[in-house]
Amino acid sequence: MLKATWEELGSQEFASITIDRIAQRSGVHAATIRRRWRTVEGVITDMLSQHSEKIPIPDAGSLRADLHAVTQSIAEFYSLARNRRLVEAVVTSAAREPGAAEVLRAVFKNRIQRVSVLLERAVERGEIPADTDAEEVIAAIGAPFYYRLLITRRPIDAELARISAESAYLGAVEGIFRTKGSRPD
Amino acid sequence: MLKATWEELGSQEFASITIDRIAQRSGVHAATIRRRWRTVEGVITDMLSQHSEKIPIPDAGSLRADLHAVTQSIAEFYSLARNRRLVEAVVTSAAREPGAAEVLRAVFKNRIQRVSVLLERAVERGEIPADTDAEEVIAAIGAPFYYRLLITRRPIDAELARISAESAYLGAVEGIFRTKGSRPD
Repeated sequence: MLKATWEELGSQEFASITIDRIAQRSGVHAATIRRRWRTVEGVITDMLSQHSEKIPIPDAGSLRADLHAVTQSIAEFYSLARNRRLVEAVVTSAAREPGAAEVLRAVFKNRIQRVSVLLERAVERGEIPADTDAEEVIAAIGAPFYYRLLITRRPIDAELARISAESAYLGAVEGIFRTKGSRPD
Repeated sequence: MLKATWEELGSQEFASITIDRIAQRSGVHAATIRRRWRTVEGVITDMLSQHSEKIPIPDAGSLRADLHAVTQSIAEFYSLARNRRLVEAVVTSAAREPGAAEVLRAVFKNRIQRVSVLLERAVERGEIPADTDAEEVIAAIGAPFYYRLLITRRPIDAELARISAESAYLGAVEGIFRTKGSRPD
């Protein structure tokens, strides 16, 4: 069923995908799909959650190298038009349905937990302050990609991955992501 | 007419705003609105363009202070739920309509031109490399806000403005936004 949706996304604009088309392609009854996922957006959000579980967590020995590896996999993922459409569909859905917004938050919370290990290792190696806010670092890694995807709507490339990794690395080393209470200002 | 739409955004969820409601509130015929803007999204995108023209361009004597001033005005703008809905509406629209995507690009291109002057001054003062890519710096300033708005969907606050300004400043000073051809890698 999710595979059928994936194929639909590969061949159609998001606006033209319907529960009936997914039902037709997958052989699952439309009523069954509606009962479980309610909307096309619901189906797509579920796909995103499943993808999120598969992101590899690098361990290259330095935070800088790890961050470059992470941003390169993000860039590869979004170099496919189908994956761009996937995230567009989820963000669009989240703006209209509280349920989809909730799933989006859950997906990214899970992603933060998975990537936090890179930062824990960097703290252990003494590369960054111990009170670095993992959530803010991960936001800094992802933000340039979503800006490019959703705002300027230009292609994702290796140059963007480099900027994203270097920017997050510099900020983390310089302590700009330290938790609020511990900064001297 | 745009004022009526603004009021609708202040009191309604985006999904419930229609051309007919805007017509009713503004006293402009629905047919006239449809002829000029085609959709609700079209009306809202036009509002965003008009807002963009009004962003103040600071001149505080240092790039760091200028960037903090810019991110503080962005944070103030998005602290209002109505303005969050405005940008959500535009991004959602851009994902579905090539026309809206085109306007979004035009709005941000204009914003880049306006903010570029801060970077030109910083280059003149010798704060950042002469070949700094203004577009990438401006993307770096905006990206954390749109990530917070559209992905994690949490409130915008002064802390985010601080992180955004410091991150863009550090990156610019360290040369990570230099145009590709001129970096030694």
